[in-house]
Amino acid sequence: MLVVQKYGGTSVGDLERIESVAKRVSKAKEAGNDIVVVVSAMSGETNKLVGYAEHFSQTPSAREMDILLSSGERVTSALLAIALTEMGHPAMAMTGRQAGIYTDEVHTKARINSIDNRAMKEALDKGKIVILAGFQGITESGSVTTLGRGGSDLSAVAVAGALDADLCEIYTDVDGIYTTDPRIEPKAKKIEKISYDEMLEFASLGAKVLQNRSVELAKKLNVNLVTRSSFNDNEGTLITKEENIMEQPIVSGIAVDKNQARITLRGVSDKPGIAAEIFKTLAQNNINVDMIIQNVGEDSSTNLGFTVPENELERAKEIMLQLNASENLEFDRDIAKVSIVGVGMKSHSGVASRAFETLAAENINIEMISTSEIKISMVVAEKYSELAVRALHSAYEMDQ
Amino acid sequence: MLVVQKYGGTSVGDLERIESVAKRVSKAKEAGNDIVVVVSAMSGETNKLVGYAEHFSQTPSAREMDILLSSGERVTSALLAIALTEMGHPAMAMTGRQAGIYTDEVHTKARINSIDNRAMKEALDKGKIVILAGFQGITESGSVTTLGRGGSDLSAVAVAGALDADLCEIYTDVDGIYTTDPRIEPKAKKIEKISYDEMLEFASLGAKVLQNRSVELAKKLNVNLVTRSSFNDNEGTLITKEENIMEQPIVSGIAVDKNQARITLRGVSDKPGIAAEIFKTLAQNNINVDMIIQNVGEDSSTNLGFTVPENELERAKEIMLQLNASENLEFDRDIAKVSIVGVGMKSHSGVASRAFETLAAENINIEMISTSEIKISMVVAEKYSELAVRALHSAYEMDQ
Repeated sequence: MLVVQKYGGTSVGDLERIESVAKRVSKAKEAGNDIVVVVSAMSGETNKLVGYAEHFSQTPSAREMDILLSSGERVTSALLAIALTEMGHPAMAMTGRQAGIYTDEVHTKARINSIDNRAMKEALDKGKIVILAGFQGITESGSVTTLGRGGSDLSAVAVAGALDADLCEIYTDVDGIYTTDPRIEPKAKKIEKISYDEMLEFASLGAKVLQNRSVELAKKLNVNLVTRSSFNDNEGTLITKEENIMEQPIVSGIAVDKNQARITLRGVSDKPGIAAEIFKTLAQNNINVDMIIQNVGEDSSTNLGFTVPENELERAKEIMLQLNASENLEFDRDIAKVSIVGVGMKSHSGVASRAFETLAAENINIEMISTSEIKISMVVAEKYSELAVRALHSAYEMDQ
Repeated sequence: MLVVQKYGGTSVGDLERIESVAKRVSKAKEAGNDIVVVVSAMSGETNKLVGYAEHFSQTPSAREMDILLSSGERVTSALLAIALTEMGHPAMAMTGRQAGIYTDEVHTKARINSIDNRAMKEALDKGKIVILAGFQGITESGSVTTLGRGGSDLSAVAVAGALDADLCEIYTDVDGIYTTDPRIEPKAKKIEKISYDEMLEFASLGAKVLQNRSVELAKKLNVNLVTRSSFNDNEGTLITKEENIMEQPIVSGIAVDKNQARITLRGVSDKPGIAAEIFKTLAQNNINVDMIIQNVGEDSSTNLGFTVPENELERAKEIMLQLNASENLEFDRDIAKVSIVGVGMKSHSGVASRAFETLAAENINIEMISTSEIKISMVVAEKYSELAVRALHSAYEMDQ
C-alpha cells in the first residue's frame, strides 16, 4: 500500500515529537507500505519568521516572504529524514522543487498547477521513504512559492493524488471528526467514515481539523483522506466518496457556530436591486455574509435579515449605516447557528421536521432557517445553542 | 562600481544587526554602486541546526544536512531583502540555486564548479540589489549543497569573480589585517594593502579573518578583496595582487602561533625511508605536521624534529610510540612559532639575519627555523614568544 502521511506543526513541535513521528513512520514502513511523509514547520517557527519580517516591513515582498517561510519545512523534512535513516529506514528529504510541485506565480497563496512525480517515484522504487517539505512549491520560472494557510495539507493531498496513493493520513492533535463538539455533548462519537460533501459542510461550519481547500482537492482527485492524532494510536476518521460508505447514517453530525451576528433591516421597499446593492457593498468590503432571509413585511415592504461573522459586525454596521437610516436597523450578537449535516437527508424525508419538533419540544425558538441538500442550519439565541445541540444529537440517535 | 559585500554571522546576528547592515548597503547603493550582498546565517543558527541533527544521528546523511543547513542563509537573505526594499532600495533575495551557483556533488563540502550569472545580472540591470544566500549551491542534478566552513566567503569571492566586480568586501567583527596581534603589540598597525601570497601565509599562520580557500580563489579570479568591520566605518585591509601595491614594505606582518608542539626523535638511523614512514603514518592519521628539521647527529644517526598542532600531540605521541622506542622520543608543548611575512623579502637580502640578530639581542634562543620565499618562521620557547614579536615588530619598523 502507498500511504501519504502528513504531520502538522504540533506533531513535529520539538525534537522529541519528531522522534515520535519517526517511530510512527517506521512502523508503517515495517508493515510493508511505501511511505511519503509531508511535514510542516516545527510549531512556532513560521510565526517567528513572520514576526521577523514584520520587524522590517508591514508590507514585505511576497516573493521574499516565500523564500523566508519555506525554510521551516525544509528543516523539519531534513531532520525527520535523518532520524528515519538512523532507525534503519533510508529516507530522502525533498523540497517542493525537488518533489516537482509546480505552482502558479501567486506568492504566499500559490495554487498547485501540476506535480512531476518522477523524483518521488524513483526514490520510492529504491525503497526509500520520501520526506517532503510541505507548504511549498516552485513556479515554472524557478521562484519559490508557498501555498498559504493549510498549505501542507494541500501538499499531502496533491501528492497523494499524483502518486495514486491508497491513503492520505493527516495527523494533527485531535482524534478525528466527531458527531458534535464533545465539550458540548460528552456523548459525541468519533465518526468512522464521512463523505467529502459532508466534510465540506462541517469545515465551512467551523470544524477546524481540515480546510475546505484540502477536502475539495481530495474530492477532485478521489483521495481517501484520514484525519487522526499523532499523539495516540486511535483510528481516525476516513473522508471518502459517498459510494465507499455502506451504512450511511441519515445525519452524520451537528455543528454549532457561536461566532455569528445578525443584522435585520426592517421595511425595505420591495423593489428589485435593493438587496443586490447591500450585498454588493458588503462583498466589496470583504464582509462574509452567510445566511440571508427575506420575509414579507407590511404593505409593499419586506424585512431582510442576514448573518455575518461576529468579528466583522462592527465594519458591517458602519457600511449599513451609510446605506440606510439607523431606525430600520437591528443588530444582534447573541445568536448561534446550529447545523445538522448528513447525505442521508437526500433520500430521507422528515429530517428537517424532526429538527424543528425537537427544538420546539425544548421551547427553543428558531429565528432563521437555511437548508442545502445535505445540511439544515438554524439560528437560535446563543444561550440555547448548547441545549439545542444536545437535544438534536439525541433526537437523531447519534449517541448510539 | 560593482561591489560584492559579504556579511558574516555576527554581522547579521539579530534583527537590529540586519537593520544596520541594511543601512550600510543602502549607503553604498546611494553612492551610485551596483551591489550584490552575500549573507551568512544569523549567528548561532547553523550550530543550532547541527545540534538538532546530532540529536538524531552522529552520522547524519550529508545530502539531508545540506537541505537543513542551507535554510539559515535563506532566512537572512529574505529578511535583508525585505528590510532594504522597505528603505526604498528594491532588493531581490536569491538562493544559491536561483543565483546559478553550481557545485560538485560533495555534500557539506562542495566546491563551486561554475556560476551562471544571468539571473544576478538581470536583477542588477533592473537596478535591484541582489541578496544572495551564501554558503550554498546546487549540483547539476538539482541537489542542494553547502560549501563547508567559510563557505559564505567563498560564495562572495566566486560571485565577485563571475560578475567581474570591482571590489569584494568581507565584513566581520574585526577591522582588517594587522601587522601583528594588537593584544601582544599595542603599536600594531592595520595593514592598508597586502598581497594574496602574504595573506595566504598569514591565514595558514592562524590569522582567522579569512580562510585560505577564499584567498586562493580571490587570487585565481583576480578579485580585489577587502576585509573590514561591519561594526564601524573604518577602512579595512585590501588584499590584492602584488602589482597593485606600490610601496611594498619589506615585512608586512608578524604572526605568532602558540598552539604548536614539537616532537624530537633522537638517533634515527640515517638511511632512506625512515622519515618517509613516520610522516606517511602521521598523514594517514590526519596529523598535520608543520615544520620539519633534520640535523646530523653522532655516528651515522640523525635527530629528527617536527611540529604538530598542540591538540594533535596526544594522538601523534601514540603513533610515534608504536613506531619507535620511547627512550628516543621527546615532546615539548611549551613552544611557539613566530613568523615574519613579506613579499619584500624576495628582493631584499638581510631580512632573515636581522630577525636572528634581533632575537639574539633579546637572548631568545631560536630552536627551529624554516623559510619560504616570503616567510621566515622561528620556533622559540613559548614564554619568550610575545617578547620576540614586539622586538621584531620594532626591528622592522612596523610601528612607523
